[in-house]
Amino acid sequence: MTFITFEGPEGAGKSTQIKRLADAFEKAGHTVVLTREPGGAPEAEALRALLLDPAREWSPLAEALLMNAARDAHMRQTILPALEAGHVVLCDRFFDSTRAYQASVGEETLDAIHCAVVTRLPDLTLLFDLPVEEGLARASKRGAADRFEGKGRAYHEGVRKAFLANAGKDARTVIIDASRPIDEVSAQVLKAVNDRLPGLLGQGHGHPPAS
Amino acid sequence: MTFITFEGPEGAGKSTQIKRLADAFEKAGHTVVLTREPGGAPEAEALRALLLDPAREWSPLAEALLMNAARDAHMRQTILPALEAGHVVLCDRFFDSTRAYQASVGEETLDAIHCAVVTRLPDLTLLFDLPVEEGLARASKRGAADRFEGKGRAYHEGVRKAFLANAGKDARTVIIDASRPIDEVSAQVLKAVNDRLPGLLGQGHGHPPAS
Repeated sequence: MTFITFEGPEGAGKSTQIKRLADAFEKAGHTVVLTREPGGAPEAEALRALLLDPAREWSPLAEALLMNAARDAHMRQTILPALEAGHVVLCDRFFDSTRAYQASVGEETLDAIHCAVVTRLPDLTLLFDLPVEEGLARASKRGAADRFEGKGRAYHEGVRKAFLANAGKDARTVIIDASRPIDEVSAQVLKAVNDRLPGLLGQGHGHPPAS
Repeated sequence: MTFITFEGPEGAGKSTQIKRLADAFEKAGHTVVLTREPGGAPEAEALRALLLDPAREWSPLAEALLMNAARDAHMRQTILPALEAGHVVLCDRFFDSTRAYQASVGEETLDAIHCAVVTRLPDLTLLFDLPVEEGLARASKRGAADRFEGKGRAYHEGVRKAFLANAGKDARTVIIDASRPIDEVSAQVLKAVNDRLPGLLGQGHGHPPAS
């Protein structure tokens, strides 16, 4: 039924917020499928392990191709069947991440691939934005860096810029200020969902009580 | 220096002929790098295992993306360095196989991907052509079918047609009649190499002795 994607860097609080939004949808009576990329299907999880392994030497082009092979399996095996069954699908990362992290591949190539793979666009994309240093600091508290976390600050500044530039072009994307305290971020998320997909969460969710 | 690809179905005798041609190049004083797809580099071999596993459910689109992720690693890590070092690279399957086996993905998408991945075209492509039944019969003698061999006759008829149609468009491709006896096929291969890349094999190779 409804497909919402969560985008932004590691350390932006996406995992916490996606769970909170899942709770809100479940309380409103919906069945929620909570999933993530790369992964979310058996074939895709096998590729996730290869993609995030720091010992592997994938070029950005190979990364983009692998991400999309995983995405194709994820779409066909998990996302599309759940949407057809009338569920709410919340996905931690989707093709906007490829457009940001593998931007060096070039828009034309990525667009051609996404045109074939992304047969259903998200109804709403929430971009969790925060200063690069803050995201890296939060992510590093969680342990060893994977291939992407280990790529250095200039790379991550480029990723942030690409996320914001693409968000500016896509009406489906709402930018969330992820540098705010957790409850404030949750309020921004609920407001975006209520504004863009009115009625789905039931009355009053995410708005201050009427006086 | 010189990049030659061997294309065609399983059971067409490519492996035998590629070794014979490698011997001829070595006798003429060249260093030969004999490689294959999917594979030919550590990252690519990891994908080969996933791609050929009959238990995996990849769509043709996912197959094309994975083949090209593997090809990107193969190009960067194996093929381009060998060519730059002045070697002869003989490759068992290359992007013409993707254009034939994953033709259902559509030419536009495949061309966009190959345009990014195939940064060096083969100097010569030898297409080993033979009737589908003959190829399947020869391949089945070698043991259990992999994901592609198991796809049935109509699929393989389509693959043969696509191989021939693409060969007709590409001047770099020479069609070899692979239904002939082994030594005759070798003679066709040597003739194609001498016609298209004269002088590389030294004088007299592949031609009847001068009377």
